[in-house]
Amino acid sequence: GVDILKSERSKSKISVDKLSDFLFTKEVIERQDRILKILQAEKVFDKSQNYFDGRVERFKTSLARAKKLRQLQVKHNWNRDEYMVANELISEPTPYGLHASMYLTTLEGQGTPEQHKLFLEPAQNYKAIGCYAQTELGHGSNVRGLETTATWNPEDKTFILHSPHLTASKWWIGSLGRTANHAVVMAQLIIAGKTYGPHPFVCQIRDMKTHEPLEGVHVGDIGPKFGYNTMDNGFLLLNKVKVPHINMLARFSRVDPETNKYVKPSSPSLIYGTLTWVRSTIVLQSGGVLARGVAIATRYAAVRRQFQDRDAPADANSENQVLNYTMVQYRLLPLLAATFALHFTGKAMMGLYQENQKNMNSEAAKTSNASRGPGPEETHSGSDLLADLHATSCGLKALGSTTAAEGLEVCRRACGGHGYSSFGGIGTWYADYLPTTTWEGDNYMLTQQVARYLLKSARAVLKGNAPNNDTTKIFTTFLQKQDMGAAHDVLGSDSDLVAAFAWRTSFLTFEALKHRDVEKNSWNSLLVDFWRLSTAHSQYLVVKNFYDALQSGSLRYELDPGTIDILHKLFRLYALNTLQQEASEFYSSAAVTVRQIQLARTKTVMKLLEEIRPHALSLVDAWNFPDWQLDSSLGRKDGKVYEDMFYRASELNPLNGLTVDPYPDSDILIKKDETAKFKSKL
Amino acid sequence: GVDILKSERSKSKISVDKLSDFLFTKEVIERQDRILKILQAEKVFDKSQNYFDGRVERFKTSLARAKKLRQLQVKHNWNRDEYMVANELISEPTPYGLHASMYLTTLEGQGTPEQHKLFLEPAQNYKAIGCYAQTELGHGSNVRGLETTATWNPEDKTFILHSPHLTASKWWIGSLGRTANHAVVMAQLIIAGKTYGPHPFVCQIRDMKTHEPLEGVHVGDIGPKFGYNTMDNGFLLLNKVKVPHINMLARFSRVDPETNKYVKPSSPSLIYGTLTWVRSTIVLQSGGVLARGVAIATRYAAVRRQFQDRDAPADANSENQVLNYTMVQYRLLPLLAATFALHFTGKAMMGLYQENQKNMNSEAAKTSNASRGPGPEETHSGSDLLADLHATSCGLKALGSTTAAEGLEVCRRACGGHGYSSFGGIGTWYADYLPTTTWEGDNYMLTQQVARYLLKSARAVLKGNAPNNDTTKIFTTFLQKQDMGAAHDVLGSDSDLVAAFAWRTSFLTFEALKHRDVEKNSWNSLLVDFWRLSTAHSQYLVVKNFYDALQSGSLRYELDPGTIDILHKLFRLYALNTLQQEASEFYSSAAVTVRQIQLARTKTVMKLLEEIRPHALSLVDAWNFPDWQLDSSLGRKDGKVYEDMFYRASELNPLNGLTVDPYPDSDILIKKDETAKFKSKL
Ligand SMILES: Cc1cc2nc3c(=O)[nH]c(=O)nc-3n(C[C@H](O)[C@H](O)[C@H](O)COP(=O)(O)OP(=O)(O)OC[C@H]3O[C@@H](n4cnc5c(N)ncnc54)[C@H](O)[C@@H]3O)c2cc1C
Ligand SMILES: Cc1cc2nc3c(=O)[nH]c(=O)nc-3n(C[C@H](O)[C@H](O)[C@H](O)COP(=O)(O)OP(=O)(O)OC[C@H]3O[C@@H](n4cnc5c(N)ncnc54)[C@H](O)[C@@H]3O)c2cc1C
Repeated sequence: GVDILKSERSKSKISVDKLSDFLFTKEVIERQDRILKILQAEKVFDKSQNYFDGRVERFKTSLARAKKLRQLQVKHNWNRDEYMVANELISEPTPYGLHASMYLTTLEGQGTPEQHKLFLEPAQNYKAIGCYAQTELGHGSNVRGLETTATWNPEDKTFILHSPHLTASKWWIGSLGRTANHAVVMAQLIIAGKTYGPHPFVCQIRDMKTHEPLEGVHVGDIGPKFGYNTMDNGFLLLNKVKVPHINMLARFSRVDPETNKYVKPSSPSLIYGTLTWVRSTIVLQSGGVLARGVAIATRYAAVRRQFQDRDAPADANSENQVLNYTMVQYRLLPLLAATFALHFTGKAMMGLYQENQKNMNSEAAKTSNASRGPGPEETHSGSDLLADLHATSCGLKALGSTTAAEGLEVCRRACGGHGYSSFGGIGTWYADYLPTTTWEGDNYMLTQQVARYLLKSARAVLKGNAPNNDTTKIFTTFLQKQDMGAAHDVLGSDSDLVAAFAWRTSFLTFEALKHRDVEKNSWNSLLVDFWRLSTAHSQYLVVKNFYDALQSGSLRYELDPGTIDILHKLFRLYALNTLQQEASEFYSSAAVTVRQIQLARTKTVMKLLEEIRPHALSLVDAWNFPDWQLDSSLGRKDGKVYEDMFYRASELNPLNGLTVDPYPDSDILIKKDETAKFKSKL
Repeated sequence: GVDILKSERSKSKISVDKLSDFLFTKEVIERQDRILKILQAEKVFDKSQNYFDGRVERFKTSLARAKKLRQLQVKHNWNRDEYMVANELISEPTPYGLHASMYLTTLEGQGTPEQHKLFLEPAQNYKAIGCYAQTELGHGSNVRGLETTATWNPEDKTFILHSPHLTASKWWIGSLGRTANHAVVMAQLIIAGKTYGPHPFVCQIRDMKTHEPLEGVHVGDIGPKFGYNTMDNGFLLLNKVKVPHINMLARFSRVDPETNKYVKPSSPSLIYGTLTWVRSTIVLQSGGVLARGVAIATRYAAVRRQFQDRDAPADANSENQVLNYTMVQYRLLPLLAATFALHFTGKAMMGLYQENQKNMNSEAAKTSNASRGPGPEETHSGSDLLADLHATSCGLKALGSTTAAEGLEVCRRACGGHGYSSFGGIGTWYADYLPTTTWEGDNYMLTQQVARYLLKSARAVLKGNAPNNDTTKIFTTFLQKQDMGAAHDVLGSDSDLVAAFAWRTSFLTFEALKHRDVEKNSWNSLLVDFWRLSTAHSQYLVVKNFYDALQSGSLRYELDPGTIDILHKLFRLYALNTLQQEASEFYSSAAVTVRQIQLARTKTVMKLLEEIRPHALSLVDAWNFPDWQLDSSLGRKDGKVYEDMFYRASELNPLNGLTVDPYPDSDILIKKDETAKFKSKL
């Protein structure tokens, strides 16, 4: 393995370090190196028994890690980003996961200054450990349908939190099962018999000393899962649990304790903002998530030799690297291209988001009293851009996480038999990532929001009162050229390639609009069309963002022409491969001709695979994953695949401590049990 | 849940029992009921802790189950089929898995009568437990590249089995890790310095009494996997281990101990036969494998309600069953159609295989001496049919197992959040099935064999010396009509629909032939084309077999017209949905027009979903899975989804025995550990 990878690396002229710097910046890379050293020095982060332990042990280890991580954060004074880097290097969900993310964020975003003092501060100092309890056994996507109630009691100015049915049990709540002593509980607010929809309430659930559940609280872990087993996702049934008035998070809406009246939020668009931010983060991460699988599979496929080439001269001696087979390239290299495409798209999205935040804040500053935080009324301006951003984040969250999750499985399977070994390192990573396709908006559900936005924009364009943004621009272009035809030179011109994707989105949008507004078809009957539309639009956005990234000035400044040329090829591979896979919509919209698709399919894509092949290893190296992070025998940077597989199987594997009696008619099952000597010690 | 499923069932007029009988026969269904009762009465088969145990515990339980199963087989005098039924009801791989399949089969098929007496008989009586050791750390697909050697020693008439490198270590060998005391080892036969390729050798590896490895044998379990963890897949390094002459399985080829000469097999086609049989079994099973996921997801989607219909009247009260959303139907119902398509295809394949065996045997009987088993020379006749059968089995194995594996994941994801719970029952089943896409021929690799066969057939058709079979028939039709065009009425006529699939296969075959024979492209450069071709051809075979099954006389005799009508709709859904997904090849081959595809996509398929929807529950009921087999909260036949989820989480889950100290600066990790009281006792 070692020699092969060396010679592979020497064959490409790409300057890996410069490309890494360009992708992540020098600063980020140095930060990662620094934190990696700190983690590796701690015994509790040793990964060598990860793949062997059962769930209870894995959870214990994970809690120990979560604690140590927090201690290190305090000791080294890590900020949020540094803490996240450490988390990513450890690469497993920990029982503090939802405390550190959703619990803190919700208190921060939805609490008043008084509530910050009361709830947020102890939480930030880990004096209280919390979680975010929204989903119930019976309701997830439909938040308005939640059954948990919070009934206002004017007598003693409290809320009574209650689970009226079994299906009202909170379910799936990360960190709730064994770890948290607090929860933000989303519950239907009821005042004087009237329901005002779901609102957030802080609720203590376990004793701060004994950690036993409080009275009226039935709480526990929901059991083993397909992945995510180091996290204690929990259930929670509340039996008329009283919380004081201050426990309803009141930044946006509240109950007036004097009048017992509901005070409603003036604009919901800031909450919108948080959702958009969370989804943008998922988009940004999806490239890196997928890149881990691509790095492992590409390195292994370079080390793995199997069969001689069928057309090789008869005296050829050694077997072919499987990465040389076009069938393997066709599976892996478009995914390699997708990692870059998603990375640049995520970056661009984050940029847009921040710019928009800035705009909103500066507008807010103009009108607001400096002595208080921005209130809901200030978030209204810029909401056109926010709507576009929100739809974009929905569509790209769905496309990005689906691409990453399904791509990881393609990578795993490309490794043949060894891909099934836990030492391969892809399977566990895949299973832990998979829920991302379902949470923060189920990927299929999200497509309805994208479609709704596109239909709305299309109607505005037709009416002539559309805001000026990219979406309305491509619709306008489409309407102008619709009858002339398009004639996109997708094989010759990159900008035409982008335009062909824009054309397809526009075509599908106006088709859907016709079905809905003219033919008056039911919403439900159009869901599949909407899903196709959202996918098409999101693919357009990825193609466009990748294209834009390649036009940037810093690119030309930081990278040499050879590397830039390969990035262009990756762009074309991503775009043309997507085009040929989704051919049907491209020809029926007349964005391209049947002949062009056939050429893309059988010639251009195959040519690009051949041209990118020599640089595959350097391109995955540029993602800069430390071996410690990948924790994979197949993906080792030095190529020592087989040695590492053998070592782990024969030296670390507790099952080998078991000597059995193999005969069916014997009463004895185990003759000798020495499994204990393999167990890791905390 | 209970009421919903009752009312669902009452809405469909399909006679579920009759359909079950038609699919499986009454006899098979009764057999299953009988065996199920026996298994349920044994404590060791209790499944309630399956999802909680770690690997070591799961393996122990699984070994105990394997033993009990064998005891029951002896007690009830079960034949092979009955044993298999029990295995499927238990639904997890056991440590006897490879003994009961590959070890026995190989001894049987490749041993001489003397070897049967010596090795097969004790193995059949479980006095010796074996495995089939072919794959090595460095070689799997390329069997000719195996590195283990078996060197003939003329001095003492022995073979010396040896692993010359680390990569020669046997790897992935089922039942080898902890259980087997024998192995069939595939090793390169070397006589007088010359290598004769891989041959099978019986090798004892552990002491029959102590079960400790013998001298020169380094053996163990290869570690945890993505699925298949109740099996002890093992590694094996042999250090110059001597075995006597009789240990080389000698039915087909052998070393003459007098002359020290190699005696080669006269025809390899019987081995061919076993491979074909194994793959046909996989095809037959794929429908049922997928049906489990479809049954679970369909039942859950009928129980699960989420959101009100957007176009529902404002006063509508209850939420919609998610099975009513077209987006959910579009994901599940084509898979439901695929379960039937694969089932009928598998049946037809098995029928062809058996017919062919009969032909070969009767030809063999004519020429052979009755006092001995059929020798290799008798297997030559009928080899044309066998070649067709072999290619068919390769293609359908790849398509069937890919469809089942990927379909299961679609089903799991269709269950939203709860699909991730192990109690859902799809995840574990999926992970255990997944290796089927890689073993018995990696699904991508197999497509090369299919393409090779199709190219060969096409050349024969062009030359006019083709055998008469279905493949050559569709090629001939294509060549005749090629210039007139096809005009298949795919939306109006079922036989035209089949013909359109045949047309596409033929078109792709002659395209590939041109690339290879005229343009002289390298084999490697055509692998992606070959994969597409094989997929297309296999889809044609499934569509054709489904169609043929619907023409059968017994169908009309056993089923009422209403049920037959629904089966026809399932046929059309499978075929038209495949057609629209693979649109590109259908229009570029001019098998259909762009307009037809657009109609299929946006109208016909959607209409079929609507028509099949009311019968979905009855159709999955017809698969006749006992709840005990599915072991799924979501897929319970009675619809008690939430009660069962809650019961398992709160009553059976050992993690809930752990009370932690949640604070990062506390030295204590666990305050109280009561996990033991949840543990199952063997
Ligand atoms: C590992 C994990 C961790 C989680 N952590 C948390 C947490 O910390 N806190 C928390 O509150 N929640 C958490 N969740 C819950 C998660 O947010 C929900 O599971 C998710 O929102 C999906 O909702 P659901 O399960 O109700 O799916 P459902 O809405 O029931 O969806 C079921 C199926 O129906 C389809 N469907 C539903 N409605 C429609 C419609 N109108 N049109 C078309 N199709 C439809 C969906 O696409 C899906 O296929 C977690 C989930 C997982 C798996
Ligand atoms: C759970 C499990 C149980 C098993 N049990 C047994 C057992 O009991 N006994 C036993 O002997 N074996 C067993 N195996 C091994 C199994 O048969 C092999 O893993 C399988 O044959 C694949 O071979 P490989 O791993 O060498 O893949 P490789 O051949 O190394 O394939 C790696 C990748 O390269 C591609 N590739 C390779 N060659 C080519 C080519 N010429 N053209 C194009 N692409 C190519 C493949 O498609 C794949 O993506 C088991 C495997 C698993 C996962």
